[in-house]
Amino acid sequence: MSQPVRFALIGTGRIGQVHAANVHASPDAVLQVVCDTLLAGAERTTAAFGGRATSDPLAAIRADDVDAVVVASPTPTHVDLVAACLDAGVPVLCEKPIDLDLARVDAIRDRARAATSPVVLGFNRRFDPHFAELRRRVAAGEIGRLEHLAITSRDPEPPPADYVPLSGGIFRDMAIHDLDTARSFVPDVVAVTAVGLRQFDAGIAGHGDFDAAVTTLVGAGGESIVITNSRHSAYGYDQRLEAFGPGGMLEVGNVTPTLVRSSTGSASSTGEPYRRFFLERYREAYELELAAFVATVRGEDTTASPSPGFEDGRAALVLADACETSAREGRTVAVDLS
Amino acid sequence: MSQPVRFALIGTGRIGQVHAANVHASPDAVLQVVCDTLLAGAERTTAAFGGRATSDPLAAIRADDVDAVVVASPTPTHVDLVAACLDAGVPVLCEKPIDLDLARVDAIRDRARAATSPVVLGFNRRFDPHFAELRRRVAAGEIGRLEHLAITSRDPEPPPADYVPLSGGIFRDMAIHDLDTARSFVPDVVAVTAVGLRQFDAGIAGHGDFDAAVTTLVGAGGESIVITNSRHSAYGYDQRLEAFGPGGMLEVGNVTPTLVRSSTGSASSTGEPYRRFFLERYREAYELELAAFVATVRGEDTTASPSPGFEDGRAALVLADACETSAREGRTVAVDLS
Amino acid sequence: MSQPVRFALIGTGRIGQVHAANVHASPDAVLQVVCDTLLAGAERTTAAFGGRATSDPLAAIRADDVDAVVVASPTPTHVDLVAACLDAGVPVLCEKPIDLDLARVDAIRDRARAATSPVVLGFNRRFDPHFAELRRRVAAGEIGRLEHLAITSRDPEPPPADYVPLSGGIFRDMAIHDLDTARSFVPDVVAVTAVGLRQFDAGIAGHGDFDAAVTTLVGAGGESIVITNSRHSAYGYDQRLEAFGPGGMLEVGNVTPTLVRSSTGSASSTGEPYRRFFLERYREAYELELAAFVATVRGEDTTASPSPGFEDGRAALVLADACETSAREGRTVAVDLS
Amino acid sequence: MSQPVRFALIGTGRIGQVHAANVHASPDAVLQVVCDTLLAGAERTTAAFGGRATSDPLAAIRADDVDAVVVASPTPTHVDLVAACLDAGVPVLCEKPIDLDLARVDAIRDRARAATSPVVLGFNRRFDPHFAELRRRVAAGEIGRLEHLAITSRDPEPPPADYVPLSGGIFRDMAIHDLDTARSFVPDVVAVTAVGLRQFDAGIAGHGDFDAAVTTLVGAGGESIVITNSRHSAYGYDQRLEAFGPGGMLEVGNVTPTLVRSSTGSASSTGEPYRRFFLERYREAYELELAAFVATVRGEDTTASPSPGFEDGRAALVLADACETSAREGRTVAVDLS
Repeated sequence: MSQPVRFALIGTGRIGQVHAANVHASPDAVLQVVCDTLLAGAERTTAAFGGRATSDPLAAIRADDVDAVVVASPTPTHVDLVAACLDAGVPVLCEKPIDLDLARVDAIRDRARAATSPVVLGFNRRFDPHFAELRRRVAAGEIGRLEHLAITSRDPEPPPADYVPLSGGIFRDMAIHDLDTARSFVPDVVAVTAVGLRQFDAGIAGHGDFDAAVTTLVGAGGESIVITNSRHSAYGYDQRLEAFGPGGMLEVGNVTPTLVRSSTGSASSTGEPYRRFFLERYREAYELELAAFVATVRGEDTTASPSPGFEDGRAALVLADACETSAREGRTVAVDLS
Repeated sequence: MSQPVRFALIGTGRIGQVHAANVHASPDAVLQVVCDTLLAGAERTTAAFGGRATSDPLAAIRADDVDAVVVASPTPTHVDLVAACLDAGVPVLCEKPIDLDLARVDAIRDRARAATSPVVLGFNRRFDPHFAELRRRVAAGEIGRLEHLAITSRDPEPPPADYVPLSGGIFRDMAIHDLDTARSFVPDVVAVTAVGLRQFDAGIAGHGDFDAAVTTLVGAGGESIVITNSRHSAYGYDQRLEAFGPGGMLEVGNVTPTLVRSSTGSASSTGEPYRRFFLERYREAYELELAAFVATVRGEDTTASPSPGFEDGRAALVLADACETSAREGRTVAVDLS
Repeated sequence: MSQPVRFALIGTGRIGQVHAANVHASPDAVLQVVCDTLLAGAERTTAAFGGRATSDPLAAIRADDVDAVVVASPTPTHVDLVAACLDAGVPVLCEKPIDLDLARVDAIRDRARAATSPVVLGFNRRFDPHFAELRRRVAAGEIGRLEHLAITSRDPEPPPADYVPLSGGIFRDMAIHDLDTARSFVPDVVAVTAVGLRQFDAGIAGHGDFDAAVTTLVGAGGESIVITNSRHSAYGYDQRLEAFGPGGMLEVGNVTPTLVRSSTGSASSTGEPYRRFFLERYREAYELELAAFVATVRGEDTTASPSPGFEDGRAALVLADACETSAREGRTVAVDLS
Repeated sequence: MSQPVRFALIGTGRIGQVHAANVHASPDAVLQVVCDTLLAGAERTTAAFGGRATSDPLAAIRADDVDAVVVASPTPTHVDLVAACLDAGVPVLCEKPIDLDLARVDAIRDRARAATSPVVLGFNRRFDPHFAELRRRVAAGEIGRLEHLAITSRDPEPPPADYVPLSGGIFRDMAIHDLDTARSFVPDVVAVTAVGLRQFDAGIAGHGDFDAAVTTLVGAGGESIVITNSRHSAYGYDQRLEAFGPGGMLEVGNVTPTLVRSSTGSASSTGEPYRRFFLERYREAYELELAAFVATVRGEDTTASPSPGFEDGRAALVLADACETSAREGRTVAVDLS
């Protein structure tokens, strides 16, 4: 048996907790250091999942007994922490986005390209077993050449009001995951046409942001991709995929906790409410994301389930910027991801 | 174009109305005579669907301008009316059952066997498009040799209290349809094991009858058939089939009026309530039953959709009697349908 | 009972045959005159469904014994035939589109507005029982205010090569039905953003047309509507609706001939292939469209199921023109349907 | 954090491996001793999952550093090993059945009843999340008083030919799981009516055994339960539940690995093949069974998910014996589980 990979975790918020628990549960990983600028947060996490606590992220990254880093701190810290990992030659899994500002991303792009240690982006949905199996079957040619991909993506409810002005807007904050999903099927997107909508949330509108959007991407091979977003969904987290080609269609619907269905006097074959939000819906995806990162760190063959990298994180931001421009100017925006 | 078949309808109750409307709507049939012992009932029907009214069933059967008869009068009249049709050489479609008393059925069995004019039994479910397609695919060998058939059959609610003592009991009144469905797959049933239950209706129990039952049939080829009956069902008429063989399984679930499905905060992918009872569920089956009878009357090829005949009606009654015996004596009953 | 409405049918092609059969089958309608410029076509139709044949459309429209007209002749004849019906004061059901050229439509717009006799457009999908029930439930407020509508609409295969240059293009020929479906939910569309695609058919591309398209409409109330079109679909006619609002989602999937599902060694719960094309998928819709037209002709209350009129036909064409412009110029096009 | 429960595992066959892996993966359990009469088997298991190897089961049970025992050795050893655990006062999770011979089970019944340490039976399906949720909703009164339960249970293929004569027959070997599932809903079964079938496997028939069966149980409250068994199933492990009461129906269908569905030219909405056999289908159930046993060992509150005990193991065997008698004698058999 290989030695477990020793992890430093930076950031102990909601996503940080998910990573801490997954590192703890994995037989191939161990939580060595937990960092939070509030030391108490780090200590609560080590009490539950092991490791030592610190408030100094650079110390965590550079520690001799750390093999890999997970960055789950607030977005504005990502670029510097990734840069520190690059400098230290330590593999890093960084939560999305790298930054909301493309200029800041591009400032470390060359270093990321030249790096010998992997930089992995936390686009966890790539590892969802349902979506990954659909993608595998598309890649295997089951429906022929992909012509159309429909991505439905609705959050159960809007983010807290005070988060809205910091979010970067619906495209950079929310659609960015869907833009990466689109690129996991069609990496080379060449045109973006987005329609932004203000349907129900006055607070979001008040910040000049949209609470819903419809985005059409076109790939270099003429593929079309439609992303339908909304910031609310009464029936829970709405995460669906539909791939269409000359040979037919492949679909993944929403996930219920169990398969129990009921029939009563007023309804037939009723399923359970869908899994509520991303922590429930993508639980397996977070576990598999970590497992793939561990395999990457160990230098194992990850062809079957490759982790998205720095360029994927950058491309999603370029597309989100193009969405914003398209929605505001009412025109199709050409993009070049190279 | 052929001339429409001229019909006499005897009996203008609920089922009589269905037949009257279907004869009226068919381009191949016309309602010539309507008979009810209460002339006013006949007249109401002719006002809506055409034809002349009478209270004399024999006159209707023997009328010169009548090509075929539908018997939809109360059960105790069926044997005599079928016998009259046999004597007159007029094709007859008789609602099930022929009679509740096997001795009375057997009294005309030889005449029915020797008849030159068809006697068709109103087992309409044989014509249900869903069940018929399932049966066609079984017959085509899609799942190999049939090993098991599961029939679920629940009425939405018990019959009126005053009908219960006249009904002949759950097996002769209700399960008889399912016994015929069983025979449409496995004509030669050799053993019957039935369990009668008293689960919810004190009135039915008070008459010594059952309000639910589980019946296991075994065919001459070793096939098993399970019929699950209940006299109530909160979610509407429950009519399902499942056929199993070495090659797989074929199923038909319940039917909703439309395909609309809803997802809300408390439920996902909810279908409409199922069609409520037999008039809604088997609407197409009644139409197709009449069309097959018209084709039979005209001497057309009905191989693809043959009408059940007198012997089918008798066999269902023999099986219902065997169910009753099995349930009351707690033992498997051997049957011989030849 | 009312007298049956006496129909003149103009045009005996594929759709003409559907209307002829439905008029024949309806107890409330009778086929009085059938017109085709090729008299033999008209005669074949009358032989099957009754009525007298003619090659003179104006004679058919103006006949004393004709109460209503169905126009199912080639598109270029529609405007003149509708105009003749308006002049004669005869109710007319005209197949879509009124014309491919908005100027020709507008030439009779004032007369249509001033008309005392109804002009009904053949947007049969409004009468599909599944779509109509979904619309009824949206109108009843079940999901709250409509925020998003997704229309998926794919033909099983492209039209014949020689029809392509005459078709008016994918938006005017195919999407026009979906644009009307959109308007049956959101009548007042204010902005159109369309992306045209050339994915698989060199012949269509050779004529400068698109073989697939993604169209986003925005309504006056901020509603978004996405129409996904393709000129081919391996699995049959793909016709789906999904309506979303703050209270949840309502969906209608594709329709199979029966509900039989199979499970085998390689697949589970497999449904039948979907109904192949519009004649199969919208069979009930054509019947109900005719029934609603008959009710309109008779002056009955049609509030529950109103027929689309001249303005609906015009609006769909305005939207199709806007789609074409948007797709060609890569920009959102504002529209005014008033 | 509590100390992990230290386990001794006896038996390292297929099920033993499942338990070894689950003990290893659980943060609350550790594999301390692994016993197999073939020491090499034990050593292979400890190499993968930890612990020390032995070929002496009594030494394993009586070891000072063992808190709990899992018995996964061949059936004939179960009674003696459970007895040894009772003598040692060590909690034991014993795979089903306790024994194939009721007399041998009853020989230790009094000791089991008097025991202070828990004896848990390996009816893992009680912990399946789908079945458990259905049972929870039934218990919560969602469909009112349970009237009918339908259990469908088919193995993908018959057991190896040389196992058949040792198996105890289809009722004691296979249906015993379903009989326990029945009792998890209706503990007090009073009558058994079973029909045994020989449909496809000459080897099984040659040993006087059945390859399929239909069993009807009646509960003390008049509930009916139908168990449909077959020793083969082309489409994988068929494990379904349907509960019916006056308020409606609750169902659990078969489980697919992912939710991907496909539509092609010959089929619509096709699911993946079902999970193949019990190791795949009941993976979560085995994990949750172990977790519940750990909680029992620790004396935690297990009201929400109680483990089945010795009496449950005995009751299932009594029912299996009654099935055998009923099927062979063609009569209903009364049972008394007290």
